[in-house]
Amino acid sequence: MKDVQNQPDRRRIPIWKAGIKNLQYPVAVMDRENKVQHTVATVNLYVDLPHNFKGTHMSRFVEILNRHRGRISLRNLKHILRAMVARFESTMAHLEVYFPYFIEKAAPVSGAKSLMNYQCAFLASFDRNKRKRPIDLIVRVSVPVTTLCPCSKAISEGGAHNQRSWITLHVRTHTLVWIEELIEMAEAEASAGLYSLLKREDEKSVTEQAFNRPLFAEDVVRAVALRLKKDRRIGWYQVESENLESIHNHNAYAMVVSHERRL
Amino acid sequence: MKDVQNQPDRRRIPIWKAGIKNLQYPVAVMDRENKVQHTVATVNLYVDLPHNFKGTHMSRFVEILNRHRGRISLRNLKHILRAMVARFESTMAHLEVYFPYFIEKAAPVSGAKSLMNYQCAFLASFDRNKRKRPIDLIVRVSVPVTTLCPCSKAISEGGAHNQRSWITLHVRTHTLVWIEELIEMAEAEASAGLYSLLKREDEKSVTEQAFNRPLFAEDVVRAVALRLKKDRRIGWYQVESENLESIHNHNAYAMVVSHERRL
Amino acid sequence: MKDVQNQPDRRRIPIWKAGIKNLQYPVAVMDRENKVQHTVATVNLYVDLPHNFKGTHMSRFVEILNRHRGRISLRNLKHILRAMVARFESTMAHLEVYFPYFIEKAAPVSGAKSLMNYQCAFLASFDRNKRKRPIDLIVRVSVPVTTLCPCSKAISEGGAHNQRSWITLHVRTHTLVWIEELIEMAEAEASAGLYSLLKREDEKSVTEQAFNRPLFAEDVVRAVALRLKKDRRIGWYQVESENLESIHNHNAYAMVVSHERRL
Amino acid sequence: MKDVQNQPDRRRIPIWKAGIKNLQYPVAVMDRENKVQHTVATVNLYVDLPHNFKGTHMSRFVEILNRHRGRISLRNLKHILRAMVARFESTMAHLEVYFPYFIEKAAPVSGAKSLMNYQCAFLASFDRNKRKRPIDLIVRVSVPVTTLCPCSKAISEGGAHNQRSWITLHVRTHTLVWIEELIEMAEAEASAGLYSLLKREDEKSVTEQAFNRPLFAEDVVRAVALRLKKDRRIGWYQVESENLESIHNHNAYAMVVSHERRL
Repeated sequence: MKDVQNQPDRRRIPIWKAGIKNLQYPVAVMDRENKVQHTVATVNLYVDLPHNFKGTHMSRFVEILNRHRGRISLRNLKHILRAMVARFESTMAHLEVYFPYFIEKAAPVSGAKSLMNYQCAFLASFDRNKRKRPIDLIVRVSVPVTTLCPCSKAISEGGAHNQRSWITLHVRTHTLVWIEELIEMAEAEASAGLYSLLKREDEKSVTEQAFNRPLFAEDVVRAVALRLKKDRRIGWYQVESENLESIHNHNAYAMVVSHERRL
Repeated sequence: MKDVQNQPDRRRIPIWKAGIKNLQYPVAVMDRENKVQHTVATVNLYVDLPHNFKGTHMSRFVEILNRHRGRISLRNLKHILRAMVARFESTMAHLEVYFPYFIEKAAPVSGAKSLMNYQCAFLASFDRNKRKRPIDLIVRVSVPVTTLCPCSKAISEGGAHNQRSWITLHVRTHTLVWIEELIEMAEAEASAGLYSLLKREDEKSVTEQAFNRPLFAEDVVRAVALRLKKDRRIGWYQVESENLESIHNHNAYAMVVSHERRL
Repeated sequence: MKDVQNQPDRRRIPIWKAGIKNLQYPVAVMDRENKVQHTVATVNLYVDLPHNFKGTHMSRFVEILNRHRGRISLRNLKHILRAMVARFESTMAHLEVYFPYFIEKAAPVSGAKSLMNYQCAFLASFDRNKRKRPIDLIVRVSVPVTTLCPCSKAISEGGAHNQRSWITLHVRTHTLVWIEELIEMAEAEASAGLYSLLKREDEKSVTEQAFNRPLFAEDVVRAVALRLKKDRRIGWYQVESENLESIHNHNAYAMVVSHERRL
Repeated sequence: MKDVQNQPDRRRIPIWKAGIKNLQYPVAVMDRENKVQHTVATVNLYVDLPHNFKGTHMSRFVEILNRHRGRISLRNLKHILRAMVARFESTMAHLEVYFPYFIEKAAPVSGAKSLMNYQCAFLASFDRNKRKRPIDLIVRVSVPVTTLCPCSKAISEGGAHNQRSWITLHVRTHTLVWIEELIEMAEAEASAGLYSLLKREDEKSVTEQAFNRPLFAEDVVRAVALRLKKDRRIGWYQVESENLESIHNHNAYAMVVSHERRL
């Protein structure tokens, strides 16, 4: 059978990324307690393609993924990347895995336990040209929280507008940093954290906590950035806060980056 | 050229709806001040197909829409529906038009003007079998508002959680009811309405208004339902409130229907 | 602490549905081989609320869900519904669980195995007033397939436009019908089924299969409806096909219902 | 009234972007025939905030937008950016405007006219530090097309899988390049362009055109890149093709960048 992908190409345009996008796949992610968490990921897999080849054999991406079936963790990402550059004889490999991640949280007063969900991702690349450090790994965590507006509180006779907000962290780390640690940093710097289950005594507690900790989107990203800056394991970071303003139909947004480098 | 769609079908299964879905199309909607508002719609068009025909000529839907190009209003929907049953020789015709709609609002204290956006829809059907009233028309309006939690306010020492919420109305009317009127009903029964532009004095005003009008999702849908119930132009209604809870990562929801009848 | 929800309401408007929406939750679904499949669900839980009560205690929904943590199947849905009406002293209970479901498929020629994902849902209600049959259960399965256009094939010198399509089934069953069975019915009546992994010999096979089985959206829904009609376990069904037309930027759509009854 | 935003901040963390996100706004875009096209945009507006200020007065973004109400074009973007840095006394300003754009196309044989929709964006920044060239402007155009798989055609006895694909261009230009020109480049290098309205003779034509022009995602991005490379008005470009594979439930993807520079 004809191998069309293997034919030569004469346009002299190398492809930066060729691969598959938006593949839904069940994965098992390792969590801090060293247990396995079953979740469902959306996966993108790309390699580069030299200018003289016409196409990529895209079925190979799924074969590689199948071989690691069920296991995606910060520890084995590099094996998948290495398998990709080996199989495709490529210089670069890119692996993006987006997944909801669940953590059991206890409500602040009643201690009632429930699962909170966080949108996370591993964004990993391999570059054969960078001999010493071929792997680039970004961990992405999006943490839903409450923010309460300092301006609204300061000028109003009672109450203050508050809302659900997403604090999104992207970090490059030198050594292992748990998703749980990044989530804790974000929740610690919000007006309050969110819970799936709050009894009345808990609702009182989180309402009062938020009212006593008014924070702009700008405050939140600065405070989280300060924590990341002090953490020696973190090499680069980006922190965003997007607030679903309860008084507007658009969102407030703030963003800090540690230093200029491609996301 | 062969007309495959016109071939007979012997499976004896009539098609309830055949047509096109998710067509993006610029439209001009009439607003209350009798001016034209330019917006962009997502359009679905369907007809029924008798059991003995194989297929529908789908290009005809776009031809009909093109003939009314630029004009979609509560007044001309029936012409489009009639054109559909005539052209397709069908018994039924369905037209669904979803569009963002903009209203200029003045901020409560400063009077500063800005545009608020509302997701609206006309859901219209024609049924040849219903000789007296062949047309069924539902107007859908989704109104973003603030709701402030009565429980949170009652039990907490300061503040109360509040959030962006969507009040969604579906109504069947006997005579013309303006989108603007439905939006006003929803905003009047929320803790506060939303604005794109609020100066500080306005922010103080809406914060205090919401704090003085705590409402559950259940309260909101009841209050809007009461208004619709008293309005003689309205024959059937459904009212929903979905609150993007600022203390949870899920939403609170309440729904009331005037009486059982298919949406 | 004040129980605001328990206060009386005098507006005489009963709430049809009050509850929580869009809760993300990890679940374990039973599959045909009687094994457990771990996936992530989006869950809605509602009850009705009599006209004389102000509000619903929404934390109870999550408590009930937590008690059945990790287990959602056609067999235990009724227990969750019964727990809801008991805990809320309500007449109705509604449970909607949306989740991606994975099935291992073998490629048609090479036999290479891969996981295909399907968007599924259980839409279950309990109504105390219906003493004999209080439970209403709808299973929803959305099956991505290939459809190839019969008209395009008949009139063109070579090739025919084809595309990814979604066949969506909603069925009410008298006895247990596996998700796998519904998926097989849909795939059997498409131009071809989809696979995550196809080697070249498989790609040849599915291309030729689709070319030899041209089908309109109307054909597909009729053929699936015929299968459901003959199946004595099925009481009511709705079949839709939505085709992401490769020659248009809108979709072709067809729908059949067994007989008029609320979805 | 207290001006909380104006208070000093001592954390020494400058904010890279602070502003508003996801504001829906009706806009009038200039098209090539120098006529005005009414559409609806989603707008993001940000400025930087020096480390010593606590917050941004977010209402000012909407005031600036209101002042240019109804007019967004490649010619006046710079005025909005300059107004932003002036009003906020900031160093940077960012303006992102996403909108559907419509072009009337004639079907290839019948000449029947219909409107095709394209998702476009202007991504513009102003940087006071770059005295000579303070403005950076990227035009983004996403063009839905047909792609037909060369491998599938080469190995199969009849037909070839084909699908709707999105070719997305991001370009930095030295002088004005019309959205229409970028769309034409993309459509010229696909297996076929899409139309909202095709009569049977047109369907035959586009089916045959696509069958005679089989192209991988890799081919498409290379061919478009070659066109952009030769165009002296273009300084930097990125070209992507994402194919909604009709034989898979995931997408094929290819991407080319002219040279490394931040998107």
